[in-house]
Amino acid sequence: MDPNRLVFINGELVPEPEACISIFDVGFMYGVTLYESLRSFRHEWFLPDRHWRRLKRSLGYAGLTDALSEDEYRDALGKVLEANIELTDPADDIWVNIQVTPGCTFPMPLLGQQTSDPTVLCYTCALPHREYAPCYREGKHAVTSLFRTPPPQCYEQRMKNRSRFPHFLSKRDAQRIDPGAFGLMLDVDGFIAEGTGANIFFVLDGVLHTPKMRNILVGVSRQYVLGLAGELGVPVVESDLTLYDAYNAEEAFWTTSSYCILPVSMIDGRKIGMTYPGAMAQRLLSLWSEKVGVDIIGQAERFAGQE
Amino acid sequence: MDPNRLVFINGELVPEPEACISIFDVGFMYGVTLYESLRSFRHEWFLPDRHWRRLKRSLGYAGLTDALSEDEYRDALGKVLEANIELTDPADDIWVNIQVTPGCTFPMPLLGQQTSDPTVLCYTCALPHREYAPCYREGKHAVTSLFRTPPPQCYEQRMKNRSRFPHFLSKRDAQRIDPGAFGLMLDVDGFIAEGTGANIFFVLDGVLHTPKMRNILVGVSRQYVLGLAGELGVPVVESDLTLYDAYNAEEAFWTTSSYCILPVSMIDGRKIGMTYPGAMAQRLLSLWSEKVGVDIIGQAERFAGQE
Amino acid sequence: MDPNRLVFINGELVPEPEACISIFDVGFMYGVTLYESLRSFRHEWFLPDRHWRRLKRSLGYAGLTDALSEDEYRDALGKVLEANIELTDPADDIWVNIQVTPGCTFPMPLLGQQTSDPTVLCYTCALPHREYAPCYREGKHAVTSLFRTPPPQCYEQRMKNRSRFPHFLSKRDAQRIDPGAFGLMLDVDGFIAEGTGANIFFVLDGVLHTPKMRNILVGVSRQYVLGLAGELGVPVVESDLTLYDAYNAEEAFWTTSSYCILPVSMIDGRKIGMTYPGAMAQRLLSLWSEKVGVDIIGQAERFAGQE
Amino acid sequence: MDPNRLVFINGELVPEPEACISIFDVGFMYGVTLYESLRSFRHEWFLPDRHWRRLKRSLGYAGLTDALSEDEYRDALGKVLEANIELTDPADDIWVNIQVTPGCTFPMPLLGQQTSDPTVLCYTCALPHREYAPCYREGKHAVTSLFRTPPPQCYEQRMKNRSRFPHFLSKRDAQRIDPGAFGLMLDVDGFIAEGTGANIFFVLDGVLHTPKMRNILVGVSRQYVLGLAGELGVPVVESDLTLYDAYNAEEAFWTTSSYCILPVSMIDGRKIGMTYPGAMAQRLLSLWSEKVGVDIIGQAERFAGQE
Amino acid sequence: MDPNRLVFINGELVPEPEACISIFDVGFMYGVTLYESLRSFRHEWFLPDRHWRRLKRSLGYAGLTDALSEDEYRDALGKVLEANIELTDPADDIWVNIQVTPGCTFPMPLLGQQTSDPTVLCYTCALPHREYAPCYREGKHAVTSLFRTPPPQCYEQRMKNRSRFPHFLSKRDAQRIDPGAFGLMLDVDGFIAEGTGANIFFVLDGVLHTPKMRNILVGVSRQYVLGLAGELGVPVVESDLTLYDAYNAEEAFWTTSSYCILPVSMIDGRKIGMTYPGAMAQRLLSLWSEKVGVDIIGQAERFAGQE
Amino acid sequence: MDPNRLVFINGELVPEPEACISIFDVGFMYGVTLYESLRSFRHEWFLPDRHWRRLKRSLGYAGLTDALSEDEYRDALGKVLEANIELTDPADDIWVNIQVTPGCTFPMPLLGQQTSDPTVLCYTCALPHREYAPCYREGKHAVTSLFRTPPPQCYEQRMKNRSRFPHFLSKRDAQRIDPGAFGLMLDVDGFIAEGTGANIFFVLDGVLHTPKMRNILVGVSRQYVLGLAGELGVPVVESDLTLYDAYNAEEAFWTTSSYCILPVSMIDGRKIGMTYPGAMAQRLLSLWSEKVGVDIIGQAERFAGQE
Repeated sequence: MDPNRLVFINGELVPEPEACISIFDVGFMYGVTLYESLRSFRHEWFLPDRHWRRLKRSLGYAGLTDALSEDEYRDALGKVLEANIELTDPADDIWVNIQVTPGCTFPMPLLGQQTSDPTVLCYTCALPHREYAPCYREGKHAVTSLFRTPPPQCYEQRMKNRSRFPHFLSKRDAQRIDPGAFGLMLDVDGFIAEGTGANIFFVLDGVLHTPKMRNILVGVSRQYVLGLAGELGVPVVESDLTLYDAYNAEEAFWTTSSYCILPVSMIDGRKIGMTYPGAMAQRLLSLWSEKVGVDIIGQAERFAGQE
Repeated sequence: MDPNRLVFINGELVPEPEACISIFDVGFMYGVTLYESLRSFRHEWFLPDRHWRRLKRSLGYAGLTDALSEDEYRDALGKVLEANIELTDPADDIWVNIQVTPGCTFPMPLLGQQTSDPTVLCYTCALPHREYAPCYREGKHAVTSLFRTPPPQCYEQRMKNRSRFPHFLSKRDAQRIDPGAFGLMLDVDGFIAEGTGANIFFVLDGVLHTPKMRNILVGVSRQYVLGLAGELGVPVVESDLTLYDAYNAEEAFWTTSSYCILPVSMIDGRKIGMTYPGAMAQRLLSLWSEKVGVDIIGQAERFAGQE
Repeated sequence: MDPNRLVFINGELVPEPEACISIFDVGFMYGVTLYESLRSFRHEWFLPDRHWRRLKRSLGYAGLTDALSEDEYRDALGKVLEANIELTDPADDIWVNIQVTPGCTFPMPLLGQQTSDPTVLCYTCALPHREYAPCYREGKHAVTSLFRTPPPQCYEQRMKNRSRFPHFLSKRDAQRIDPGAFGLMLDVDGFIAEGTGANIFFVLDGVLHTPKMRNILVGVSRQYVLGLAGELGVPVVESDLTLYDAYNAEEAFWTTSSYCILPVSMIDGRKIGMTYPGAMAQRLLSLWSEKVGVDIIGQAERFAGQE
Repeated sequence: MDPNRLVFINGELVPEPEACISIFDVGFMYGVTLYESLRSFRHEWFLPDRHWRRLKRSLGYAGLTDALSEDEYRDALGKVLEANIELTDPADDIWVNIQVTPGCTFPMPLLGQQTSDPTVLCYTCALPHREYAPCYREGKHAVTSLFRTPPPQCYEQRMKNRSRFPHFLSKRDAQRIDPGAFGLMLDVDGFIAEGTGANIFFVLDGVLHTPKMRNILVGVSRQYVLGLAGELGVPVVESDLTLYDAYNAEEAFWTTSSYCILPVSMIDGRKIGMTYPGAMAQRLLSLWSEKVGVDIIGQAERFAGQE
Repeated sequence: MDPNRLVFINGELVPEPEACISIFDVGFMYGVTLYESLRSFRHEWFLPDRHWRRLKRSLGYAGLTDALSEDEYRDALGKVLEANIELTDPADDIWVNIQVTPGCTFPMPLLGQQTSDPTVLCYTCALPHREYAPCYREGKHAVTSLFRTPPPQCYEQRMKNRSRFPHFLSKRDAQRIDPGAFGLMLDVDGFIAEGTGANIFFVLDGVLHTPKMRNILVGVSRQYVLGLAGELGVPVVESDLTLYDAYNAEEAFWTTSSYCILPVSMIDGRKIGMTYPGAMAQRLLSLWSEKVGVDIIGQAERFAGQE
Repeated sequence: MDPNRLVFINGELVPEPEACISIFDVGFMYGVTLYESLRSFRHEWFLPDRHWRRLKRSLGYAGLTDALSEDEYRDALGKVLEANIELTDPADDIWVNIQVTPGCTFPMPLLGQQTSDPTVLCYTCALPHREYAPCYREGKHAVTSLFRTPPPQCYEQRMKNRSRFPHFLSKRDAQRIDPGAFGLMLDVDGFIAEGTGANIFFVLDGVLHTPKMRNILVGVSRQYVLGLAGELGVPVVESDLTLYDAYNAEEAFWTTSSYCILPVSMIDGRKIGMTYPGAMAQRLLSLWSEKVGVDIIGQAERFAGQE
């Protein structure tokens, strides 16, 4: 951790190594944290309005609408950008994470006696270029997890939250089987849901497919890619996908807010695609790069060695 | 919070108001905390071996077996007892919570780069007599939740963990509908699972019923009550229970490690039982009290006003 | 219908052909009728206490506890017996049906404006000897239905109620395929649940099996047979049964309050058993006959021609 | 009930207080009633063809195609209109309900001996303006039910039928929690299905969403609203909706044949929308009013005090 | 079997009566056979590219990509056509079946010791005109099966394979109930999936409906019919269909590679449609006939007597 | 394959390399083969009565009761023993497999025209000592499969059949991840079902647990082990087991008819047990060895090098 990097906690800016929360925070006690992850392009946060809209819905579903206002959201994002951006090369960009919890209860979470205001924290970090840059050219592996995404009648996965034990188990297991792999999670009916920290897309007969919204965290990047595909005239379908689709895809890729689009080269030991990024991913990345004025792969490769 | 009360964090004893963890702790980032709650009787922890056995299984399921040894577990429990017991009346008892996480990852949980040892923390607090003492005589209400317990193929609920968003949602909703109530959760098939922080028992035709282990946190108190019932010659069944059973029960009660047994007097607006504690709960509480040398209800009532 | 037979409706005794209810009765408007069917042995109702206990639970689950008291229940049963028993041969017996609804709403059930007291009605009829008597010696056929029993999270089937559209569909379809057959219903997981108006038992390797209580109307006769089996030292299991069990059973039989026990000789075109009643059914019927002082098969055969 | 209002029963017109059916009618005995509810606009039934088409399908699914012909349907509707319309103000309208059952069986429904022709009955009533008129401006509350809609493999909910015990339980529970509320029912997977007597729509990001047809009574009003939305150029989607959508909707409303469209202002204690009717509901109601030549809200408000 | 007809087995052409495989073939030992069925039009295989694409996906899903190359596929199809076509009238056509298994294991399939190359076999036969020709004018019956299609999380039904025990059970049962009928299978949720050897279509309100791809063998003929419908401007929907749709369809028909389109005239005893082929089937068959230069019904009727 | 080893096919004894079936056999065409695997002890088949009873039930469920009589079963087993036993060392034993199919259909399985009698075949082979002998001392690994066992409403897994595509997929995947491992399959709810060719047992708190019969092939060895445990006074439970139980078991082992009991030393990378065979497996194997007069491990180890 870097003492020069400052974290926003409840209005204060504190050095990263000192950034901590009370052990009585409900975010820690119940996994009740709502959050958003954004990255910058040319040192401006990308799509902050869409992230706010989603965060507002997460809070609304959880009954925590009052825990954070749009102004507070923008204020926190602005403060950490201002406080940390000089640590970053002008041609590079950064990542940010904003988290909200109901605050502390005491003495026991069971009792639900709220003893503080909601906790709002926001921290930045360098983009993980070193980890992801090679994957644009080599592809990333996926290992399907034995652990399924919780169905929406338990708690909605569209609410971006931190009760992510199934995702932790999935990631661990994926890495045990194939050390570099991401975990790919199915829903309780066996349909493909999402990666442990990313959405997934498949190209099947030239059509772009991605899982339905039913059981997934609906990524802002996922939605952005759907928009890009529309602009490119690529047909897109949200569908009930299974391993049959995954194993037979002409091309597959992950989307998330840091690396944007990352090709998949193998799923459960079956090779996917031939060149990386595949033709579809390449077209989408090019249009994305053009729109944000940053060569996404180029930036990642340039700064991969400097992390 | 009380600066005289000391919390054990990774071997250190720190005053309660200063007890905090890094925001990069996976316990906070992914809800990946395994834990146990125990209480003391006559200033000794109750059933620490059983709690260890369960914690070991929680760690085993999560692939975190090495995160905590039995010695470390006993050491932490011992240290917080010694450090805090003098804050407690000799005739009263305390509650303790021991929590383990995989430690910190940095900079982003997605990357899984472990940057610290596992986090082990342990804190005590006064028993919540003020909240529970009246319920022995009046009963506690229950409100069935719309949010279901996650099925074991997502993540096992027998693993006592802190990814408890569904429980948080259930508790909030229960309190919105009936302010003093506990939430009662069903599984995805609609069978009764558990309270948001307790197991539940029903008396039906004189037989003691409790939900099967399939979807629940299998409480140490639940198991202890099954043992007590055996000693009393009470027939006991673990079964697939529904609201039909709940609404028609002759008697119902919660079990948990703090208050032991707490009568239920109403479920979803339907009155349950006639006197509190009911005959069965009374017999179980009497035997329990006798075995531990503490009048459980008496202690709660005596210290309810002093919290 | 017989004008000499009197029906009890809300305290009045009216001739059968005139027995009717308002079209605004919620029993008709929503299928919200709770009921019990009993038969007499030697002109006394059989097991009225057990039927009351079940009816009380049906009312409790439906939130209609106040709609009928135990005294009113006994009074209605007594009145129709007294009013109609002389129509019956001293060696024969009768059947009775007691039904409770929330009463009328008006003008539309949607609005829920209760405009009357609960409806309580009770009618008797001759036992259907003509239909069932031959089946003791020939067996009754079963046809498995495409329509499944509603799961308990929709509405509990242990509550004996009149929202029985799936049972109607099942019975119709069974009779279309095999005119004399009863319908056999599966639950939504494909496990055997019950007949359209009876419970079912199978003998497998000498053990008596019957479906678990989870999805079925738990018949008073079913419970009585479990008791008889206990007295006879026959091992009994409530289990998850499938068509594999049904098609391979050594013996199968229905239980219900009118004919008590009726052998099954064919399921979905597969022959079941060799002689009827099978050995197990015969032992149970003998003990039952002995206990009630009526030769059950004998009575049915004697009066089959006189209906 | 009003002795001047005449009910059509099997070809006869009888005064409302005398309108009754035999207790042996299968509609009462098994909940086997198929029905339709229509209202008039300017004293003509609204969309009688669509209602007939649905009723025909209900009968077809139930195997009762011969129970009612289109001519008989139109005849019954015509007769009750003619017989009762003079009870209604020329500027007001009325509601009608036509019901079909298989007729009587005797002595016990179990035996299925049909002893009569099908029962056809048809009754009118005043529109419930007093109850609904204020809701156009204040919104109606919704409480999500613990009881789920039966899945189509049990009995199809698109068949408009009277085996509605789950709906009764849901309505009761909703009113217990929030006296003025409608019940909102989920299907067995936790997706939103329907109200206890209405369909539901949500506006999300300006798009009109309503549950898929899979588990619901597909309302004629629902279909009409889809058509209106099409004319208005409003994008419409039938989707798998959850409480996440419900709690975060910009606007929500019920549709049914009496009040047409009724705004929702609260769901499970979460406020929905800001003004009532919301912008979308207002546009739809205006177009609807225009098409039928009746100011729907205006009529309701004018006659609300006169019921 | 005809000794003049030659079967392709692993590169050899052998007379039909001698065509056999080792009992140690995994195709026999585990039901692990992937296959395709095609027919000819004017003595050329119809849509061999589409069949190859599906077979490749079947092999890909099963992890057997290397078992057959496209060249080998075309070679086998070509060889059996050449070897057998002279047995067929110039105006008639033939059917072909190409099957691939992993080859032999020995001594026990459990051990998985592959002892041979994959097995590739290909056989032709006359089209079953005698069986199907009358059905174009009379319709084919359907009987819904009690046995459900295995869900994709068990093994994907889009993979055309020979582990078809449920289909065998369904066909047997259908024929027991209605000797000429095809079996119609539902999925585990009760939605209509497919026939035991065909896809199914329904016309509802003039729209062509067919089950979603989720649980079915996605027939090449099914896809071809979707294309024809598109050319004819007929609206088409892939949907969640139930028996409600089946029983109320204006028209229904099967599609498969031999008879192309076959009208359904009865489902579970409910009459479907009025004339056969129905209007929609007729239009589709006409366009299909035109495109392939063969009068499909005419050919079937002409050669029905000569089989 | 060994030309000296003779296979029984439809009454004939043919050399193993020539043992084949028609490609038109329904066993190959639909995976419709019912079978049993037995081993000998001291050159006599072990428990042939129990295997017959199960085979009879498999045939009964499949509607193929007439395909094989008990005499034919015993005759086939007897003939292959007599014909092949001299190939086996007097101190060694052999394995046998008896398979029944409905016979051939022709020309296409779709048409169901049976053209032959049922196929009955029976072959023996050496016990796979080389593969299994080391596992008694080192344990066998297990890898949980992504592919689930088909639920009983599709086709009953208690019927021992050859439509085993899910098992093939599971075995392949297990071996891809951990070359020596067996696949462990879950049911559609995520409960542990069985290995791809074996049943599984776990020791938890000293109690022997094995999955319920609901979704599994109920092994004759499984049942025999339950009997042995009974004799040893070991408590046994058939339960809903999950990966939580598997990963935390004190001991686990497979049972099947060839190796009898084989210890599990690792599941999904988690180490199980400490010594192999574990204490429970050792006791069971000892009693089993004693009862059959063969030192099971000793025999395997002695002949492991000679296969």
